[in-house]
Amino acid sequence: MRLIIVGFGVVGQSLARILLSRASDLYTLYGINPKIVACLDSKGSAVSPAGLDLHRLLEAKISKGTVAAYDKSHLQSSLTGIMENIEAEILIEMTPTNLDDAEPGLTNIISGMRAGKHIITVNKGPLALAFPSLVELADYNNIRFRFSGTVGGGTPILEFAKRCLNGERIVSFNGILNGTTNYILTKMEEGLSFHDALNDAKIKGYAEAMPLLDLEGYDAASKLVIMANWIMGLKVTIRDVKREGITGIDLVDVQKASIKKTSIKLVAFCDNIHLEVKPTMIQKIDPICVNGTLNAVTFRSEYSGDKTIIGRGAGGMETASSIIRDLIEIRESIAKNNL
Amino acid sequence: MRLIIVGFGVVGQSLARILLSRASDLYTLYGINPKIVACLDSKGSAVSPAGLDLHRLLEAKISKGTVAAYDKSHLQSSLTGIMENIEAEILIEMTPTNLDDAEPGLTNIISGMRAGKHIITVNKGPLALAFPSLVELADYNNIRFRFSGTVGGGTPILEFAKRCLNGERIVSFNGILNGTTNYILTKMEEGLSFHDALNDAKIKGYAEAMPLLDLEGYDAASKLVIMANWIMGLKVTIRDVKREGITGIDLVDVQKASIKKTSIKLVAFCDNIHLEVKPTMIQKIDPICVNGTLNAVTFRSEYSGDKTIIGRGAGGMETASSIIRDLIEIRESIAKNNL
Repeated sequence: MRLIIVGFGVVGQSLARILLSRASDLYTLYGINPKIVACLDSKGSAVSPAGLDLHRLLEAKISKGTVAAYDKSHLQSSLTGIMENIEAEILIEMTPTNLDDAEPGLTNIISGMRAGKHIITVNKGPLALAFPSLVELADYNNIRFRFSGTVGGGTPILEFAKRCLNGERIVSFNGILNGTTNYILTKMEEGLSFHDALNDAKIKGYAEAMPLLDLEGYDAASKLVIMANWIMGLKVTIRDVKREGITGIDLVDVQKASIKKTSIKLVAFCDNIHLEVKPTMIQKIDPICVNGTLNAVTFRSEYSGDKTIIGRGAGGMETASSIIRDLIEIRESIAKNNL
Repeated sequence: MRLIIVGFGVVGQSLARILLSRASDLYTLYGINPKIVACLDSKGSAVSPAGLDLHRLLEAKISKGTVAAYDKSHLQSSLTGIMENIEAEILIEMTPTNLDDAEPGLTNIISGMRAGKHIITVNKGPLALAFPSLVELADYNNIRFRFSGTVGGGTPILEFAKRCLNGERIVSFNGILNGTTNYILTKMEEGLSFHDALNDAKIKGYAEAMPLLDLEGYDAASKLVIMANWIMGLKVTIRDVKREGITGIDLVDVQKASIKKTSIKLVAFCDNIHLEVKPTMIQKIDPICVNGTLNAVTFRSEYSGDKTIIGRGAGGMETASSIIRDLIEIRESIAKNNL
């Protein structure tokens, strides 16, 4: 399995570390032997048809700030140029989420699909803005398209709904899909003002570069769109989500809720008609009423009631582990097809 | 798909109802067309090579107390006799759990395996007492052996660990695996004495015929054994579990725990060495700290942290829905093998 990876931030570096530490294990247990043959970041690229030395790649990124410092060769550094010159089966897209036009992720994914690469992405932007057409393009090009890490980080929320609820019809689901806002609301329940809670989240590294994506509910809405398409079979984009963030919530609201044994949470909800993200009072004994940066989703099924899944929604190592799951699944799905 | 079903209590009758209401759906979506060709209960049997009329079967059971009232024919009513005379692919074992010698379930399952039938069971007894040898016998006879409903009822705890955590090593897990004791402990937190809480559970139908299996932790221990074998790859039986029930817990213990923002729960725990069921104080904010009859399990994985799954652990319809999942999985696994 030869991989081209685009984007080498926290998740990409965690992926390189997992590949370094688990190479033999992944081969023995799952029959995969992933090699990174090209790595691009915003400043350049490193390429080696036989597989990059991942220690040196990490060293280049950490000491010089770009993978271009990997060696002195002046190779093509556009993704399309690299795909023309280097053989690879899988493209892993890890550039930052952009909900305005989804770039550069969207173009990277489309180019990869057209070049016949299987795609794994952890970037929510392209899916939030163009899920239905990307799935169609993947089918048309007969390639596998996986995105486990876009929802729930390392917590397999998408797989759970798709693979474990076989034979069931999911009627609706609701959940907490954004760890940053949940951390802030948890801190407000402990008595902090909105601004102090936000500052605390920034200090702890829980608030992203552009916290408005979190605070205004765009991040949760993106994940809701991915789930609605993938799990419920809807054909929707982020424009179909009714959305309200948490910037209007103050300490008094939170304390009032607490007296009624409820908590205010930023809840994402979907049935076959509505897609909504908004601050909602939920019972403290409701399984999705989780604290801190946890994510939680309850699926309501037709025959076997409610099922909840809870886990950390972010983290470099966690999200990188979702890429490993996707690699294994692509491997298995190809093997099945070749029988 | 021709099914022989053994045991026609709450779960069996729920299964018949699901098959009645979802026949076309199951065929369209999953390509399965299950027909019950024989049904046995403790008083007799009903047999029809073309498939029993499920309305009449339910009517016979409800009005006369046994499926033997289905028709006047005097057919062979031992399971082995029926298996010799009727063609069927799958045996579904639903007799009550017995943790002394696992009978009659154990003999039913072994006979079915020897006769080359795929087996689905919701009976914990045979698995708690003989998991390693049953799996070996299934392999030896080249048949599929599924038991989703034995842990978590309709909540896919086993599938979650096996299918959704692909590529991960599960280091340990702990959880609440018995709804009856959890209901009693929840009621005690609300101020009821142990005996009042137990009576309340009996009135609500949450306490089984022999509540000691629940109260003394045998039920949770059985499920722990199934999970330890299936998920962790251990080869253990219920004799390997260190077990303590909740009969020694009084209201004072529960109230003391509550002051410390914890709850006493009957927690089952497993790592690669220890198997333990015992009353344990856990933080109220721990995701497995669920109330009422809910079940909850947290899996600790090596790379992507803790993941929790929560759902109803019992109920006829819920457990019957797990049988449908198993049927679909057997169908898919056979189809894959025949490619």
